Amino acid sequence: MKALLIVGDGMADRSIRKLGNRTPLEAAKKPALDKLAALGINGIVDIIAPGIPPGSDTAHLSIFGYAPFEVYQGRGVFEALGVGLEVKPGDIAFRCNFATVDDGLNVIDRRAGRIEGGPAEELAKSLRNLKLDEYPEVEIIYKHSTEHRGALILRGLGLSRMVCDSDPEEAAAQVQVVKPLDNSREAAKTAAILNKLTHMSHKVLEKHPVNMQRRSKGLLPANILLFRGASGLPQLESIASRYKIKAACIAITAIIRGVCISAGFKPINVAGATGTVETDTIAKGRAAVEALENYDLIFLHIKGADNASHDGNLEQKIRMIEKIDSMVGYLLDKIDLKETYIALLADHTTPLSVRNHTGDPVPIAIAGPEVIRDDVKRFSERDCAKGGLGRISGKDIMPTLMNFLGKQKKYGA
Amino acid sequence: MKALLIVGDGMADRSIRKLGNRTPLEAAKKPALDKLAALGINGIVDIIAPGIPPGSDTAHLSIFGYAPFEVYQGRGVFEALGVGLEVKPGDIAFRCNFATVDDGLNVIDRRAGRIEGGPAEELAKSLRNLKLDEYPEVEIIYKHSTEHRGALILRGLGLSRMVCDSDPEEAAAQVQVVKPLDNSREAAKTAAILNKLTHMSHKVLEKHPVNMQRRSKGLLPANILLFRGASGLPQLESIASRYKIKAACIAITAIIRGVCISAGFKPINVAGATGTVETDTIAKGRAAVEALENYDLIFLHIKGADNASHDGNLEQKIRMIEKIDSMVGYLLDKIDLKETYIALLADHTTPLSVRNHTGDPVPIAIAGPEVIRDDVKRFSERDCAKGGLGRISGKDIMPTLMNFLGKQKKYGA
Repeated sequence: MKALLIVGDGMADRSIRKLGNRTPLEAAKKPALDKLAALGINGIVDIIAPGIPPGSDTAHLSIFGYAPFEVYQGRGVFEALGVGLEVKPGDIAFRCNFATVDDGLNVIDRRAGRIEGGPAEELAKSLRNLKLDEYPEVEIIYKHSTEHRGALILRGLGLSRMVCDSDPEEAAAQVQVVKPLDNSREAAKTAAILNKLTHMSHKVLEKHPVNMQRRSKGLLPANILLFRGASGLPQLESIASRYKIKAACIAITAIIRGVCISAGFKPINVAGATGTVETDTIAKGRAAVEALENYDLIFLHIKGADNASHDGNLEQKIRMIEKIDSMVGYLLDKIDLKETYIALLADHTTPLSVRNHTGDPVPIAIAGPEVIRDDVKRFSERDCAKGGLGRISGKDIMPTLMNFLGKQKKYGA
Repeated sequence: MKALLIVGDGMADRSIRKLGNRTPLEAAKKPALDKLAALGINGIVDIIAPGIPPGSDTAHLSIFGYAPFEVYQGRGVFEALGVGLEVKPGDIAFRCNFATVDDGLNVIDRRAGRIEGGPAEELAKSLRNLKLDEYPEVEIIYKHSTEHRGALILRGLGLSRMVCDSDPEEAAAQVQVVKPLDNSREAAKTAAILNKLTHMSHKVLEKHPVNMQRRSKGLLPANILLFRGASGLPQLESIASRYKIKAACIAITAIIRGVCISAGFKPINVAGATGTVETDTIAKGRAAVEALENYDLIFLHIKGADNASHDGNLEQKIRMIEKIDSMVGYLLDKIDLKETYIALLADHTTPLSVRNHTGDPVPIAIAGPEVIRDDVKRFSERDCAKGGLGRISGKDIMPTLMNFLGKQKKYGA
């Protein structure tokens, strides 16, 4: 018995008046999602708790069965793992942005004109093997991911995650001087290192040929690195050891891929998967079917509907739901529900009206050999609320699936 | 985006055979409550936890998002705040009753023949500026509220809430000697003060002209003060600061008003609101509509149905539900559901058969701009259980509403 767990990122929404008080899931043509709901048992899920808007990282921690309020330190470590860096105990990791600043270090664009991969990678090369004379014992590891995004690791004795961000998270504000968040020597040292790195990155990038060229083309230079989300490696018992299973993930978005890796999923790469609305969902579905040969649990993450929601783009959200539907159609064709469970949910609601994550419950459907089918015929926020699962918690999803797979130990005699 | 949260105190009930196995909510004519349910999303709520009968104070703590098992000390502080006293850190507050005792301090009537406001206030004047020679540093503050009810505050260093009640809570029993509940010097001192106040109140009240007159009319004298519910000021982060909103309450019953004040609601007074079945519900509705101009959240409490339930009076309970219905009809007329959320629930079930609070879940309806409507068409215990909210907890109500209002912070990145 195997399981495929699919998350349609930010797919859930609220009642939208111009859709006749329907949600995008209700407005989209999605015969395969509806078939999954009709074949399965359905419900709604409070990913963290009712009314608590989850982040991408905390949502997936919860879905994988960890208590976010206990284990979560910050996003940095997931970004670092997600871009392929190894994070060791004691390391402090950060999410980084290439940004554009003026001479007074005022942020003009937090994303450096959404710089593209090629030029960004060129710039990233100049940030390899950075060293600070004052801290020769600290290893500084930077890796670029996509567009303006990257991750940084500080490695060495005596560092701390108790430091604030340099990223002011708004334009026109000045790059923040990183301050320690407690009175420890470690936090003071880490803050000092980051402030030196801020200036060093500006010095290295400001005169870089790529930026000279960008300026000559009227593009914003990527002339500084901003840091945020300081965090160490959380101590998570891996899915693999907790349930004695082999688990793999298909997730491109760095932060999600990083949560998966920290939970012990083996990442699988898929050509054509982009983490955007352009992603090739069928290629992802094919990769999931293949991976089910060798793994007990596959986690499959599809990002696009969340991007569309953050942009407030209704048509694109619906189109993305329909792309997910094609993929689920493919999966229902290829996967034998007499041997495999398929679960589908959103990791949070991202209403088009809000353009950000909210704390509304999300729909879930689980089909497979022994589920007790309910009367739900459509996969939507409204329909799934009438389903046989009732209203459950994000942290209940993994035990529920592992229970179907016979991987849960009896508690008691 | 704003919200109006309405509690119909003790409105929920159980299946009553002589109503054809319906509940009073099902038997009452309540087109407006049903309209609210039909426009909204519905569910049932375990105010504290399944099967736990809430008090009036703990119910509202939970509804306002606090964990009663962590923060609750006793009712005294809410009574004191509710009658308009200021409670400072270190103060110990009590709920007080005027009662009738015989010469042996046996309680003849815990409510002194339900003495009315005027005479009770006369008596209360004689309890102003009490001082105990042995404890000159302790300030003794008494304030009358309605009928036999009042509140007492002890203010000074070295006091403790760890003392039992003097109120035996039954007739024919003797007024209890207050005992310390731990071995601290503070509890011993507080108990000694209360025992002296018991005798002092009896001495002052016994010969008071109001009581002479009452005796001559054949009425029971209010010749002693009974104390209960010792408590200090709980440390609650106010609703206003937790969610960065302006919040006001319309609540007459002292204990409820006190919980509201402790949670940071600004109390609004309404002429004609009495906290009984005679209350002017339309006046309260009008005040709520006006208050929504200046506040983000209005809490509106209607007491009468609970009084009727404690009296076992079915007709009055139904009449009170119908008065609440008229008020909700007025509110639905005046409030634009495209801009404002209206939530309605009971704070606990008070079955007519039990004449006291029970731990049954209560119905809830939430209507407003972006709720995903369910199929529920009637506001009742039975109908709301089929709704899209499923079964939630009292502590989830405030996060759920604040999530709709966009006042919840994302947890994670």
